[in-house]
Amino acid sequence: MTDSDTPLRVLVWGENRHEQLEEHVAALYPAGMHGAIAAGIAEQAQVPIEVATATLDDPEHGLTEEVLAATDVLTWWGHKAHREVSDEVVDRVQQHVLAGMGLVVLHSGHFSKIFKRLMGTTCSLRWRNDAERELVWTVAPDHPIAAGVPHPIVIEAQEMYGEFFDVPVPDETVFLSTFAGGEVFRSGLVYRRGRGKIFYFSPGDQEYPVYHHRDVRRVIANAVDWARPDVSQRSLPGLVRVGEQQDWTAHASLPEPAR
Amino acid sequence: MTDSDTPLRVLVWGENRHEQLEEHVAALYPAGMHGAIAAGIAEQAQVPIEVATATLDDPEHGLTEEVLAATDVLTWWGHKAHREVSDEVVDRVQQHVLAGMGLVVLHSGHFSKIFKRLMGTTCSLRWRNDAERELVWTVAPDHPIAAGVPHPIVIEAQEMYGEFFDVPVPDETVFLSTFAGGEVFRSGLVYRRGRGKIFYFSPGDQEYPVYHHRDVRRVIANAVDWARPDVSQRSLPGLVRVGEQQDWTAHASLPEPAR
Amino acid sequence: MTDSDTPLRVLVWGENRHEQLEEHVAALYPAGMHGAIAAGIAEQAQVPIEVATATLDDPEHGLTEEVLAATDVLTWWGHKAHREVSDEVVDRVQQHVLAGMGLVVLHSGHFSKIFKRLMGTTCSLRWRNDAERELVWTVAPDHPIAAGVPHPIVIEAQEMYGEFFDVPVPDETVFLSTFAGGEVFRSGLVYRRGRGKIFYFSPGDQEYPVYHHRDVRRVIANAVDWARPDVSQRSLPGLVRVGEQQDWTAHASLPEPAR
Amino acid sequence: MTDSDTPLRVLVWGENRHEQLEEHVAALYPAGMHGAIAAGIAEQAQVPIEVATATLDDPEHGLTEEVLAATDVLTWWGHKAHREVSDEVVDRVQQHVLAGMGLVVLHSGHFSKIFKRLMGTTCSLRWRNDAERELVWTVAPDHPIAAGVPHPIVIEAQEMYGEFFDVPVPDETVFLSTFAGGEVFRSGLVYRRGRGKIFYFSPGDQEYPVYHHRDVRRVIANAVDWARPDVSQRSLPGLVRVGEQQDWTAHASLPEPAR
Repeated sequence: MTDSDTPLRVLVWGENRHEQLEEHVAALYPAGMHGAIAAGIAEQAQVPIEVATATLDDPEHGLTEEVLAATDVLTWWGHKAHREVSDEVVDRVQQHVLAGMGLVVLHSGHFSKIFKRLMGTTCSLRWRNDAERELVWTVAPDHPIAAGVPHPIVIEAQEMYGEFFDVPVPDETVFLSTFAGGEVFRSGLVYRRGRGKIFYFSPGDQEYPVYHHRDVRRVIANAVDWARPDVSQRSLPGLVRVGEQQDWTAHASLPEPAR
Repeated sequence: MTDSDTPLRVLVWGENRHEQLEEHVAALYPAGMHGAIAAGIAEQAQVPIEVATATLDDPEHGLTEEVLAATDVLTWWGHKAHREVSDEVVDRVQQHVLAGMGLVVLHSGHFSKIFKRLMGTTCSLRWRNDAERELVWTVAPDHPIAAGVPHPIVIEAQEMYGEFFDVPVPDETVFLSTFAGGEVFRSGLVYRRGRGKIFYFSPGDQEYPVYHHRDVRRVIANAVDWARPDVSQRSLPGLVRVGEQQDWTAHASLPEPAR
Repeated sequence: MTDSDTPLRVLVWGENRHEQLEEHVAALYPAGMHGAIAAGIAEQAQVPIEVATATLDDPEHGLTEEVLAATDVLTWWGHKAHREVSDEVVDRVQQHVLAGMGLVVLHSGHFSKIFKRLMGTTCSLRWRNDAERELVWTVAPDHPIAAGVPHPIVIEAQEMYGEFFDVPVPDETVFLSTFAGGEVFRSGLVYRRGRGKIFYFSPGDQEYPVYHHRDVRRVIANAVDWARPDVSQRSLPGLVRVGEQQDWTAHASLPEPAR
Repeated sequence: MTDSDTPLRVLVWGENRHEQLEEHVAALYPAGMHGAIAAGIAEQAQVPIEVATATLDDPEHGLTEEVLAATDVLTWWGHKAHREVSDEVVDRVQQHVLAGMGLVVLHSGHFSKIFKRLMGTTCSLRWRNDAERELVWTVAPDHPIAAGVPHPIVIEAQEMYGEFFDVPVPDETVFLSTFAGGEVFRSGLVYRRGRGKIFYFSPGDQEYPVYHHRDVRRVIANAVDWARPDVSQRSLPGLVRVGEQQDWTAHASLPEPAR
């Protein structure tokens, strides 16, 4: 959907387990974490947008072929139940990303099946849950994902994520975070895979009200807009057998469209 | 200028010497090469746009502080008179690029003072002028600069540019060209320097009607749109002395804007 | 193995099916394609080296835990039987690569399970089998993988591989190929994944004597040397829970080794 | 010099002004900062090495054509007298780097003429001199420049350098630093320019004994080894006019060496 008047169709996927099982999480996120993330995108979006949600316990985790085909950008938050996500659904989501659907992976989603599948690495990291101050610094000041946020974003209490973060070298690094304990983390990372754009953003944890933070919401809203497909028709890059050598300059052999 | 309703202000800079001195160039480009490039951008632009031109023999090469301050994106074509461009003007253009003005460098502009200044390398390459067929292949199919052009773009006759092209590893590679003689060239390259976006595009020579080619025009029109500044106020990244350590979480110390 | 006096332990993996089934392949490669690749590495290596081979029909495809643990760099050629490679062995190879084992993937290995697993993309491309001349141009002239080969490498007859090649943007691009038909291909690509180094090199096909070509052999020999692990002990990057915040400047809290 | 038995020839360049003018700097660095840096390289080098020094007040700053031609890797520290470095010498050093000489730029050398020349940007940053603890974290754990140092390197007192650091996106990021005040800095950056390798490393200031720190010394020693030229003969990439199209497959037209 390249027409900026057509609403961007965002689907916020949430695991929705901590909210059911832990009272203090439910208190922080009465509409679920997915509810808070969806509300934040709607609040901070700078373009026309439609936001829906889906969760692990929905049939097919709410990620049927029909739903994905009607989604421009998917956001992903999961933590304790990564293993319960079916491989068949992961296959399907991967195919849609490679065919052009945007994907925004949040916080503990670094260990989700879909992120590890797209990265090819362990996606492991260092961590400590000690309610530390996180500062999110912009190192690509003109990147659209960094528009409208302070330098740094101040998050009063957060789980610490630290290096080494075992991911491929990113195509672009937008944010770096530091923590009160002195650690550093590459916290805002851009990847392109197939025809899809992927953004990983580390702030966000079930134990802190991070998804109510205005600046965190703005980054996620920026990211879903940035990740929107450049093409209207979704298509997976495919093996193409080319016919015999062409006489490129002949008028009869007009080249095909690039996309 | 981030508002897509505000016309993009493009300045096409041309050396305008071959057109004065060589009859066959004048025949190919009766309005000057800069005239053809400007007409091509106007013809192929997908957004509201205002295109002006300036040439080497204008006072201050037509690149005064006032003109540059009112330019969103500058395109640059030069060849035989690179040395006649004054260092003072090169300084000024460099400052504007680092402060956010977009720059699109064309063909033999690889050897211009401004491009070598921004790259830091010799920008040398291999070449042969033998009216060869050039094919321009897209290797970043979803890049906005590649929108709307065939794969490959077929240019019937061109000067050959070949590797090794002594430039920094680009931030993104959009196009690769092959020539009838078998050579390869990285022909569409993205760089970010300071707050400015730079695109180098190699097709284009005074001896061939390349700037009348629809697809070449489309690429240049795409590139000027892509290179537009993300910020409305131009500012050079500067040395900043920071005061004493902050109590980041105090409400009184609100962080500054990132841009 | 960082000590340059310790022989580099290379394992050449070959599918070894075309050689069994097609007479002309057997004629080109009487010792098997893996045999020719192994001989080429031994012939062109600039450092002490030990080369072994393994094939699809060996028990566990010859890729047991013991074998992999004693391998510094694995090369991979497969084509018609990618699907017969067991997922369990692919898991094992992936773990070793992420823990530091080097991997050199050759030609049609672009569609192998292990390469797709590590890339996360479809790894699809365009192709035509028409005995075309391939020229392999160096675009990173000081890269160790390009040492000692001409610019370009000339391969008289080859299968054409063309763009778009659906892989992540490489960490480094060493070679670009052109074909008689005018196509281009990113033919020598560097990736780092986890602690392992990966090189993809596209020349090589069962129908042409490419693995007897001196320069192709030299590139592969360079690549296995380049891909050798930097660390003597193989270890997978892992999730690390860090204890409480440290008093970094206390002498008692000496930091751990980086690797 | 690719033969690992031939000693690596390192030249440590120091501005040598603070040491003359400020007593506390002279007390920290009785042999000059260049003397401490040279001693550190000699102490921590893992390969045969010859280290010499040169300073601003030497004739031609100690950087004559003869000296540079006999230097494999140059290290650069300057601060208050960047402007006194003659443009002619900067030209000469730039040519040698582009032709293959390695360059390691230290701390306030970010604002040196030679670094700005090679980067093309302002190289500006944020700073605060407040004797803060700096932690240097490795984000490329298998990079040779990070060999043998802890994660993090702990520097008890340092000048703070913070983002945004206006340099081109690096070819590789090896280290990220955090400071007690919460700032972050990309502190170990790899660039390739022409045939030369460049490493920028930010720890080091005249007011602190940073160049006596074992781990800082090890990083600099690693970096000079990493930056050594890959080729024995220094040559600047040049414009090459190629003759007529070649019959690549004819035996008579053997390709030229790649380097």
